[in-house]
Amino acid sequence: MVTPKNIIRLVLSGSGGQGVITAAVIIAEAAALYSGKNATQTQSYGAAARGGATRSDIIISDHNIDYPGVIQPNILVTLTQNAYNSFASIIRPGGLLLSDSKFVDTQVKADARILSLPMYEMVMDEIGKPIVYNICMLGTLVGITQLVAPDAVVKVLKERIPKSFLEMNEKAYSMGVSLGEEYHYKTF
Amino acid sequence: MVTPKNIIRLVLSGSGGQGVITAAVIIAEAAALYSGKNATQTQSYGAAARGGATRSDIIISDHNIDYPGVIQPNILVTLTQNAYNSFASIIRPGGLLLSDSKFVDTQVKADARILSLPMYEMVMDEIGKPIVYNICMLGTLVGITQLVAPDAVVKVLKERIPKSFLEMNEKAYSMGVSLGEEYHYKTF
Repeated sequence: MVTPKNIIRLVLSGSGGQGVITAAVIIAEAAALYSGKNATQTQSYGAAARGGATRSDIIISDHNIDYPGVIQPNILVTLTQNAYNSFASIIRPGGLLLSDSKFVDTQVKADARILSLPMYEMVMDEIGKPIVYNICMLGTLVGITQLVAPDAVVKVLKERIPKSFLEMNEKAYSMGVSLGEEYHYKTF
Repeated sequence: MVTPKNIIRLVLSGSGGQGVITAAVIIAEAAALYSGKNATQTQSYGAAARGGATRSDIIISDHNIDYPGVIQPNILVTLTQNAYNSFASIIRPGGLLLSDSKFVDTQVKADARILSLPMYEMVMDEIGKPIVYNICMLGTLVGITQLVAPDAVVKVLKERIPKSFLEMNEKAYSMGVSLGEEYHYKTF
């Protein structure tokens, strides 16, 4: 989990209803509150956001973070074709691009490892509730990258998710972790 | 709603469970998606966050926003004594400081209008569910400042809140707006 400056830059992107921002808040909290890191997490809304693509930037570092925006992410997640088309070009060379095989056709070439996984299909087959799709994505991301310890995210889920929804969220998360671990990739 | 550069800087602060970040996401979306503004919304987590105070920075502007962090907010909300003690000193001269009369003793002097209102008590008396406290605070803030049109926030609530919780959230919000309107204050 080391880059030259011990800093990891992520961009999560998709459409408004996919829970991208919630996923970003959870990963930043898992890093900062339960992994001893510093973290920032930012949304910028403007003309682009009104056009449909939601984007959240996260930086995780052992040191103080001067500027919370991300120019070139080590890790980019794109959950819609629109998000993929908008942001695939900004990925850092050698980085990881994760998208969903149901929503994104990853034809554009990028100097990165591209993983297109059936996260949405898995959630709908196993749980049937699209509301936990973002949590499954988060698990997949953690499984692939080991960005934070899988258990750190579980701690945040326990704090943030109402009791009656927790079991469903934990199931979606652990399914994602298992899927991601099959594609473990050390990008930083 | 005009500052020299048509830019409004807010800091919302409190403790982890109070829903400060959700409130920040909602106000930024209301400004950007339903009021034609640009907006950024940022959390920074580090040693201070682990000590207990949660803080989210929001910038709303007619123009592009270069740096999403807030140094001196026009509007500061502090929902705990810890948050008040940590952040009261950063308010912009002439700004607005909103806190809750149940949780914060506003003894420290600040060169700002300080409003200490019984938002928590009102939510508990009228609805009995602390989970909508943040939404009531958001209503109060909008009522006081007219930062965005009250209806812009309702549109975001309708998109973000599950149907079975929407009525409770709308009630908390409109109670807050009514309370805030009694203290209308043009700070920008």
